[in-house]
Amino acid sequence: MLLGTPTGFRDFSTEEMILRKKVLGKIEKCFIKYGFDPIETPVIEYWETFKDKYGEEAETKLMYKFQDPWSKKWYALRFDLTVPMARFFSAQAFPIPFKRYHIGRVWRHDRPQKGRYREFWQADADIVGSPYPEADAELLDLTVNVFETLGFKNFSIKLNDRRLLRGIFEEELKLDNVIEVYRIIDKKDKIGTEGVIEGLKKLGLSAEKIDKIIEIISAEYRSEKLLEKYVEKFSGNKSVSTSVSHLLEILDYLGSKRQYVRFSLDLVRGLDYYTGPVWEVILNEVKIGSIAGGGRYDELIKRYSGKDYPATGTSFGVERIIDAGKELGIFKTDVKTYTKIYVISLGKNVYSSAWKIVRLLRDHGYSAQIDLMRRNEKKQREYASKKGIPILVYIGEREVRTETVTIYDRQRNKRYEVKQSELLNIISQVLQDF
Amino acid sequence: MLLGTPTGFRDFSTEEMILRKKVLGKIEKCFIKYGFDPIETPVIEYWETFKDKYGEEAETKLMYKFQDPWSKKWYALRFDLTVPMARFFSAQAFPIPFKRYHIGRVWRHDRPQKGRYREFWQADADIVGSPYPEADAELLDLTVNVFETLGFKNFSIKLNDRRLLRGIFEEELKLDNVIEVYRIIDKKDKIGTEGVIEGLKKLGLSAEKIDKIIEIISAEYRSEKLLEKYVEKFSGNKSVSTSVSHLLEILDYLGSKRQYVRFSLDLVRGLDYYTGPVWEVILNEVKIGSIAGGGRYDELIKRYSGKDYPATGTSFGVERIIDAGKELGIFKTDVKTYTKIYVISLGKNVYSSAWKIVRLLRDHGYSAQIDLMRRNEKKQREYASKKGIPILVYIGEREVRTETVTIYDRQRNKRYEVKQSELLNIISQVLQDF
Repeated sequence: MLLGTPTGFRDFSTEEMILRKKVLGKIEKCFIKYGFDPIETPVIEYWETFKDKYGEEAETKLMYKFQDPWSKKWYALRFDLTVPMARFFSAQAFPIPFKRYHIGRVWRHDRPQKGRYREFWQADADIVGSPYPEADAELLDLTVNVFETLGFKNFSIKLNDRRLLRGIFEEELKLDNVIEVYRIIDKKDKIGTEGVIEGLKKLGLSAEKIDKIIEIISAEYRSEKLLEKYVEKFSGNKSVSTSVSHLLEILDYLGSKRQYVRFSLDLVRGLDYYTGPVWEVILNEVKIGSIAGGGRYDELIKRYSGKDYPATGTSFGVERIIDAGKELGIFKTDVKTYTKIYVISLGKNVYSSAWKIVRLLRDHGYSAQIDLMRRNEKKQREYASKKGIPILVYIGEREVRTETVTIYDRQRNKRYEVKQSELLNIISQVLQDF
Repeated sequence: MLLGTPTGFRDFSTEEMILRKKVLGKIEKCFIKYGFDPIETPVIEYWETFKDKYGEEAETKLMYKFQDPWSKKWYALRFDLTVPMARFFSAQAFPIPFKRYHIGRVWRHDRPQKGRYREFWQADADIVGSPYPEADAELLDLTVNVFETLGFKNFSIKLNDRRLLRGIFEEELKLDNVIEVYRIIDKKDKIGTEGVIEGLKKLGLSAEKIDKIIEIISAEYRSEKLLEKYVEKFSGNKSVSTSVSHLLEILDYLGSKRQYVRFSLDLVRGLDYYTGPVWEVILNEVKIGSIAGGGRYDELIKRYSGKDYPATGTSFGVERIIDAGKELGIFKTDVKTYTKIYVISLGKNVYSSAWKIVRLLRDHGYSAQIDLMRRNEKKQREYASKKGIPILVYIGEREVRTETVTIYDRQRNKRYEVKQSELLNIISQVLQDF
């Protein structure tokens, strides 16, 4: 009997889910603080919705495509949350800026490895309608806020602008097929500089041009000096001047949060739809790839709506954030249950009294369990202990007679015998101190 | 350009999502109160995991199956949350009772109609390990709690036991292929009594037997009288006596909540895996089919683990609950945004001061927005109004000079000019009264 999940797919235990809900809850709270509102789209879209949006590799190798046996139409599981949002936005008229968040799963038929799964959660925030650096800056501000809120300290935001790179390539190399070059550069983390050189050779570029490209993308500065240098050198190039002033304005809005930003000309982002600033967040201490990333995609929505809608967005890689947080000791899977109270019934005769007590606790909002297995006291206690339930409430024949219960606080090893009418008060005090 | 979703799939707007999150949040809170903990399983499973679990129609017509183009293995989108849980449970050793909840989407290639979609959410609570009526009673208790918490009043729980029906069929009809008969009875709501008769004829049953079946399944009582009658009549039949005493014990635990229960011998539930008590919740005022349902499936987990694990569970039909709640006026999609505050900047010169204010508000947990479109005051105000954001905070050159802001409470039409140092206090007071 097959008990496993397909390769690259995972189950999540209760311990994992309690952690995930906490992490996702914090991210969602940040999204809401920054004025983003939720939407949801289907897991399945028409294949045509995705076509020509992500690049060749995504379309031919990574996407889960299948044909509906009845309608014969081609469907695909969503590859990201950005393209479905663009389709969603284009189908209706929304006040702009349209600021939405979306937390959900996406599917990519990638080779599974550390931090990479075929089914994974993304948490996205996007802004449609604004062409201004304010919008990008708000997303980067949010990005810093999310990671600070989650407890990460040692992270960097790599920032680049595709227009800047295009301008430099135009000036220095007279290059046409930039998107092909981008795709190769994007894989630098995976294939190394040697791999990039190899790939560029296959494109038919001369050794001289390849050397130049490697030199350009290897430049990395923590300040605006790099930008100033290029603006000085290529002030006549519109791509360069526009992108540099856009980037400088972003920095200006970021205030003290700019400390996390570092310019990286080797950053292009893999997906075809990006048009301007792009960014990725990396952890300086954990080798797991980028844990968030985003950028501007001013041309994507036009392809659905026919109208110009500049847009920018950022995406948090939930799986990597959780994996890295665990590695760093920020996140722990040490909570085994949400249940706070286990009501132990001492014998069959008192079961209906115990059932009343557990109902009373639940009616007042407490998470409580009662024996469903007709077990003796010892077995009930062992179950509560295995589950890590902190409070036991005992009811036996004596307790029923005297209208009392015995409360046992496992963590403090304290025992209270209280009137049943006092139970709720005492429980609220005991739980308050946790 | 295709802007739609596939047939039977839906987008959810922010208004819908805010309502859904509220409803799902309430259901989840009930699950937790009753001692259920979360797990998650993949959306995609190996096809073999689902095979021979649900019945022929599900397997051949309703399930989204597809072949992985690389591994050539057959996958399927999950059809419910119960079977994946059974697989999940069987792969590891958990303390029993294992009580889990799972809120997520499932896919069925059904004919779309009112309250029925091809992609829909279920919210499930299941108990593995207990063969006793206590476990079923806890689920029914939870069911009532969920609907009362959501604000539903006029609902009924139809309750039956497959063993009871089998016993009666054995005694009265000497029937063998009960599962085939169940499948036809299960469709009664859709195909009517005439359709059931037609279906039973096709099975080759005599007119006499068919009359008898229709008579049996048409019996419906609000009390235990029906049970007593059958126990009296067929006391020697083990299926009848076991199931009746199981049902009577469930009722006993339910206390005042038994008022919602009504016995319905026509209820069998469509899925093959049920073995004992089965139930469905219907609304007495809305024609939308069952809004929740469940039952005992003592044989399912054995098929993965090889060991006997009795189990019982209940599933809430999120789409129908929401559709019905809207129809009844219990649920409204009147909240357009989570944002509480819009900071209006009066002119470009004060923008950086406005940005500081919005950051201050966000840092203190408030959901706040600021202009990202370089708009004038009127346009900013119109946007805030369209979005239904209740509080405006104005910052102009005078405000910057005097270190003040002007707060406008749109709902009460009240205006306050306050020191910036007082802003947080005033905002917390204004929002408290909402």
